[in-house]
Amino acid sequence: MPSNHLFQYSVVSALMDGVAETGIPLSELLTHGEHGLGTFRHMVGEMIILDGVIYDMKPDGSVIALDKDACAEQTAPFAMITDFKPTVTASKQIPSKDSFTETLSKLLPATNNHYLVYRIGGTFKSVTVRTVGGQLSPGESLAELGKRQASHTFHDIKGTIIGFRSPAFMQGISVAGDHLHFLAATRDSGGHVLALEGDGDLEVSAARIAAVNLQLPTDDDAYNQAKLVRDDEGIAAVEG
Amino acid sequence: MPSNHLFQYSVVSALMDGVAETGIPLSELLTHGEHGLGTFRHMVGEMIILDGVIYDMKPDGSVIALDKDACAEQTAPFAMITDFKPTVTASKQIPSKDSFTETLSKLLPATNNHYLVYRIGGTFKSVTVRTVGGQLSPGESLAELGKRQASHTFHDIKGTIIGFRSPAFMQGISVAGDHLHFLAATRDSGGHVLALEGDGDLEVSAARIAAVNLQLPTDDDAYNQAKLVRDDEGIAAVEG
Repeated sequence: MPSNHLFQYSVVSALMDGVAETGIPLSELLTHGEHGLGTFRHMVGEMIILDGVIYDMKPDGSVIALDKDACAEQTAPFAMITDFKPTVTASKQIPSKDSFTETLSKLLPATNNHYLVYRIGGTFKSVTVRTVGGQLSPGESLAELGKRQASHTFHDIKGTIIGFRSPAFMQGISVAGDHLHFLAATRDSGGHVLALEGDGDLEVSAARIAAVNLQLPTDDDAYNQAKLVRDDEGIAAVEG
Repeated sequence: MPSNHLFQYSVVSALMDGVAETGIPLSELLTHGEHGLGTFRHMVGEMIILDGVIYDMKPDGSVIALDKDACAEQTAPFAMITDFKPTVTASKQIPSKDSFTETLSKLLPATNNHYLVYRIGGTFKSVTVRTVGGQLSPGESLAELGKRQASHTFHDIKGTIIGFRSPAFMQGISVAGDHLHFLAATRDSGGHVLALEGDGDLEVSAARIAAVNLQLPTDDDAYNQAKLVRDDEGIAAVEG
């Protein structure tokens, strides 16, 4: 796939509807890029794809890198991945998640109606993450899982954030706005980013995405029967 | 591109916002398939792509097939195209557009959350079409154009319909529901289908689409500044 084309498997509304029994084999997902995020079967944990390696950030706080065998066996009910080639790089102070939103908009202006992909690396005074704990029963919705999510705050930690910004009109297909996953440099902790505070300059690299390859689930009765009604409040509560 | 993958240029909400000054070169559009529909610069007329040929169905009722030179010069602000390989074919009585919706759902069950692509060929007792007359000023919205649309009813006419069904959750990106364009066998009349009545059996061929390649406009200030707010009623009024 050409650089900075987004490949996305399934839609966020399907996760909201609890469609997470099956999905795309991770080995197939990796044919579409080396930089991304997502979740795993039954929404157990958070996925980050960094430099072509898929990391499973588990609800108990542990992190494992998935090897070739694991990628052949496991599936993702939702994932976004790209062959990331930054078009801008900059050293920036990032005092908060909200300030990053502004910083990125300045680095890549006039992109309200496009996707953005980015990476942030360096030392953080703090990063607060959550990892969802997985469905307790088949079809449990992401909104329900979100109510049980465990959050952790790491202090004075080096690491990398991988993120995507999706345009407002793609809400329900993707997560409108910024969606960030963090992995510590030691590769032993991480999760979905709720808040952050940078320590000094962080390295930001980013690119605009104008091409989206959306792969919808097939042979998945739960997907076929899902209502897929856009739930703005629910998505903001659990993915904001 | 593999068979039955949808390539779509821009989003319907952009047309609703009047973004139609530029677009994808028709020659580039044709690299993504041979079966599709769309519109032209400034939304003058209706596009149908049949067996790899782009036909321009003009507001005055005339139709021309675009040759290689025309395809190199002209652009489409919105189009959907696929390399169509039917997975089902059937002879069916189609007394109305609504009855076709039911017929297709039976031919391809459990596809509520997918796109469908299809072709209907044969003789029609009547086909009512409209062709939009183009923007009177830059940025005029499709909803405004729709108020001036000319409709024509053809009687006892042979021809072909090309259509796409888009899932409800893609409203605003595509046109949720069925979207049909008609071209007469004589290639001298056609348009966007508002109503139809088949005469005896019609040949229906169709396939499910699970992969969508969405290409967003680049270098287009009007697109970058568009609000792209989903307008369910507006889309239904002008594209239903």
